[in-house]
Amino acid sequence: MSKETFPADHSGQRASTLPYGRYRPAPEVDLPDRVWPTRRITKAPRWLSTDLRDGNQALPTPMDLDRKTRMFRLLVELGYKEIEVGFPAASETEFAFVRSLIENDEIPDDVLIQVIVPAREALIRRTFDALAGAPRAIAHLYNSTSPAQRRVVFGMDRTEVEKLAVDHARLCRDLADRHPGRIGFQYSPESFSQTELDFALRICESVMDVWEPEENREIILNLPSTVECSTPNVFADQVEWMSRHLSRRDHVCLSLHPHNDRGTAVASAELGLLAGADRVEGCLFGNGERTGNVCLTILALNLMSQGVDPQIDFSDVDAVRHVVETCTGMRVPERYPYAGDLVHTSFSGSHQDAINKGLRALERDAAERGVPRDTYPWDVPYLPIDPKDIGRSYQAIIRVNSQSGKGGVDYLLSTAHGLKLPRGLQTEVAALVQRVTDGEGREVAPDELWSLFRAEYLPAEPRTVLLGHRSAPGERGQTTVKAEISVDGESRALSGAGPDLLAAFADALAETGVEPVVLEHAEHPATLDGTPGTMAYVRTRVGRDAFWGCAFGPDAPTASLRALCAALHRHDRSR
Amino acid sequence: MSKETFPADHSGQRASTLPYGRYRPAPEVDLPDRVWPTRRITKAPRWLSTDLRDGNQALPTPMDLDRKTRMFRLLVELGYKEIEVGFPAASETEFAFVRSLIENDEIPDDVLIQVIVPAREALIRRTFDALAGAPRAIAHLYNSTSPAQRRVVFGMDRTEVEKLAVDHARLCRDLADRHPGRIGFQYSPESFSQTELDFALRICESVMDVWEPEENREIILNLPSTVECSTPNVFADQVEWMSRHLSRRDHVCLSLHPHNDRGTAVASAELGLLAGADRVEGCLFGNGERTGNVCLTILALNLMSQGVDPQIDFSDVDAVRHVVETCTGMRVPERYPYAGDLVHTSFSGSHQDAINKGLRALERDAAERGVPRDTYPWDVPYLPIDPKDIGRSYQAIIRVNSQSGKGGVDYLLSTAHGLKLPRGLQTEVAALVQRVTDGEGREVAPDELWSLFRAEYLPAEPRTVLLGHRSAPGERGQTTVKAEISVDGESRALSGAGPDLLAAFADALAETGVEPVVLEHAEHPATLDGTPGTMAYVRTRVGRDAFWGCAFGPDAPTASLRALCAALHRHDRSR
Repeated sequence: MSKETFPADHSGQRASTLPYGRYRPAPEVDLPDRVWPTRRITKAPRWLSTDLRDGNQALPTPMDLDRKTRMFRLLVELGYKEIEVGFPAASETEFAFVRSLIENDEIPDDVLIQVIVPAREALIRRTFDALAGAPRAIAHLYNSTSPAQRRVVFGMDRTEVEKLAVDHARLCRDLADRHPGRIGFQYSPESFSQTELDFALRICESVMDVWEPEENREIILNLPSTVECSTPNVFADQVEWMSRHLSRRDHVCLSLHPHNDRGTAVASAELGLLAGADRVEGCLFGNGERTGNVCLTILALNLMSQGVDPQIDFSDVDAVRHVVETCTGMRVPERYPYAGDLVHTSFSGSHQDAINKGLRALERDAAERGVPRDTYPWDVPYLPIDPKDIGRSYQAIIRVNSQSGKGGVDYLLSTAHGLKLPRGLQTEVAALVQRVTDGEGREVAPDELWSLFRAEYLPAEPRTVLLGHRSAPGERGQTTVKAEISVDGESRALSGAGPDLLAAFADALAETGVEPVVLEHAEHPATLDGTPGTMAYVRTRVGRDAFWGCAFGPDAPTASLRALCAALHRHDRSR
Repeated sequence: MSKETFPADHSGQRASTLPYGRYRPAPEVDLPDRVWPTRRITKAPRWLSTDLRDGNQALPTPMDLDRKTRMFRLLVELGYKEIEVGFPAASETEFAFVRSLIENDEIPDDVLIQVIVPAREALIRRTFDALAGAPRAIAHLYNSTSPAQRRVVFGMDRTEVEKLAVDHARLCRDLADRHPGRIGFQYSPESFSQTELDFALRICESVMDVWEPEENREIILNLPSTVECSTPNVFADQVEWMSRHLSRRDHVCLSLHPHNDRGTAVASAELGLLAGADRVEGCLFGNGERTGNVCLTILALNLMSQGVDPQIDFSDVDAVRHVVETCTGMRVPERYPYAGDLVHTSFSGSHQDAINKGLRALERDAAERGVPRDTYPWDVPYLPIDPKDIGRSYQAIIRVNSQSGKGGVDYLLSTAHGLKLPRGLQTEVAALVQRVTDGEGREVAPDELWSLFRAEYLPAEPRTVLLGHRSAPGERGQTTVKAEISVDGESRALSGAGPDLLAAFADALAETGVEPVVLEHAEHPATLDGTPGTMAYVRTRVGRDAFWGCAFGPDAPTASLRALCAALHRHDRSR
């Protein structure tokens, strides 16, 4: 290496004009003996879907009764057992939907509905009216607890906010006592993530003093990151701190409600579960206010990818996506984990090659061990899970553009047409695709790739056409062939001999003035345009150059000889 | 509470049909004394944008030369000092682009370009050809190191893969020696996140033995989560383990390259920085293979929100988004943190109310302390940052539908029309909006809200029209008024007296057979349809009911008396 030096720090980054000085870092959490970083998630948490509440309230066009019912049925089908169905005191539609679920007997015995209500008497009374006749339900009481909310929105100090929570918790309890054993409680110190931990703890304890959780009478304490405002490790610290300081912990289900303002809601939920939480509230595909709630789909499939049963049935994720898109009017983005159009797609040549090899190895290994392919341990490069496990076809895994290489070409021709191109031919076809796409900078669809390949390697009318042939064993282990061909429409009978049929035919062709030397040869059973037969690939040297040719035939010998003719055709055309 | 119990565990979640047994959890990292959970990010890392490489190779339609140039210029403008510009050995377009940057003198002195190349001799030679004449550049060598890649793709054992890396690192060094001081080195053990840590360390050490980093000759070791395959705390453990075990650590820039398969790339990058990394590679708006690379925009603005200068200028994020969308053909989703259309938008009534109050408090507090509003510490509920700081208008912060309440109504009428509705009137208008939207379940645009409000409260032709008035002080501190009005087109002269002008006018109106009692009254300077004047709001009792009326006038007295007439009009219409 040269004596001249390369700068130690390449970076000459400069101060930006952003007013970062207006913002403060998240406060420290005093938890030097935190245990969450050492733990793993080994079972599914309890899930609550709030698609019909937090998800719905964030839509430019909220769901109507029909769409809400459709969403509710989807959630039940998927296996959610706790479903927040609305904010019944907020509007007529919300109230009517809760009533319709109850009156139309839509709620299965093993499903709990949950309804949210702020700490206001009239709204609480209206909420309990909405629950009349419900088999079982969770009344979810919340009030906001952060310093900003206390000061700016409520104009209350800590004591007053605590009293607000306690008084309305008592009202909830009084109203619930009229429905013995049917109403459970959840309390959220809303804006928990921005609330001083000691105050969050104190207000939760005070609410518990009213609700008196005990054996067989659990309550839920739900910790929202109403606004995500720290790295997820800080949120995990907050959760572990709460989990360790809460009294009556055995009778408390500790729940999380992460939002995604910093793009780390999934991580906050996962680290929060490590930190001791029992339950997660979220929405399918991360719907919800602003940047959305944590995505229940990602959380579930992240668990699956670690060998943990999420207990929710995402075996057909595209069907789920379709219903959610219809109900919400929102689209799942192309790069959305697990469910986006592009997330199991590879355009890069090296990625395609590795995926192609990985899939083939999987099939080979599974077959060798006599294990069904679909349950064989998954270990394919660049694909975190088997798309088939969530009901996605392999069609879109590999797409070909100017970034692609032989792996992609091979994959597409193999899956769509059953071709098994020899490696050298794969490389050549990839170069052909690059010539086409580089000029135009676009994707080549599978059909177009097939047309390109066919026009180049499977000529419809080659100069040299094999009309018939007969072969026989010759002297000293050689093969002899008599062939009838037409060259430029003129029939000729030829004969030759060689170590095998192809060599014998090449020898025979010398009579026409060319002297092909067969370099490589491969064939396999295939079906072309609905006809079963054999596909053959022949690479032959003619003069100083070598050419691949391919042909289909009713049997292997015919296909091979035709492939040699196709290679000659490409040689002729190249001159 | 009833003696009957509510189930201790509500959840009756059932096993799914997903084949989770095919998947294995991420391996443990032996790092009981990890320090990353205790740390905070206090300065920006070095950033590398790979929009032109990893981002580009994942596009259905890769960028052409023009779009690439536009993207490069954007990245330079934003302040990126390290930019991976392509994979020059992969295609003609990639090669040509690198050449065009060099030959057209597009690369500022303080910007380093980086090019990627796999461990293959021909490709490395071609890559160095592409760099001829470059002022300074980083040659980024990679080879895949995970067990699956070694076995399935390369058919090599550890020693062979290590030799592959070492041999090609040596070739890079030999070729770089021809450009003294101009070529720096980066090595990626690709698929690091799935590679055994001891092997990742060993191969990095072996490459370092060739490149010999030392004082003033730093190299970059880049750790990709080529496939994101664990919760982000495990990735952080991997990074800290590497950072602590690497020799020559002072001369190594430790870089991260997170992908987003589990939706936690941002968290992985952030925790990886806590774990000791110096640098992050990613793309604007998370473009890149499959689920994308980590998003540089989110990472930067997450830093800003913690009071740390990201050193990248996202002061007009929508302008950045526009260029990226144009170049990539991809759309930034509605709920994308910081940059999505809906992420600073609130539809929920309680959120709107809190935001509205928070913004007003901010303005008041800033004014009181004589600090410019735009630099005053940010602490507004439900808005993690001030949208203005990244160049977004407040227009879309609050949008009104059936989920909205007084806060949203007030905000929209206030920002678009300068109205300051009294609280009771806000609630009434919100109810009016709910009646409209609940039936139709849709959003009400600001213009439509204005039309609704105007039709209801600012009648164009009230029954009672004020034609003129004159007031004077009367006896015992009272005000007297003489007014000319028309009722249903018939002019009348009235007179009355009261403690103030409005009361006097109400007294005068008794002559027409109504006896309004003014309950509330507010007014403020305003501009209506381009005319400056005063807007007045009057709530008056007539019989048993109370009505708000609003009116605009050239001066406060006229506006107030007209507002009383408007309230009477609403009373008449209600009968």
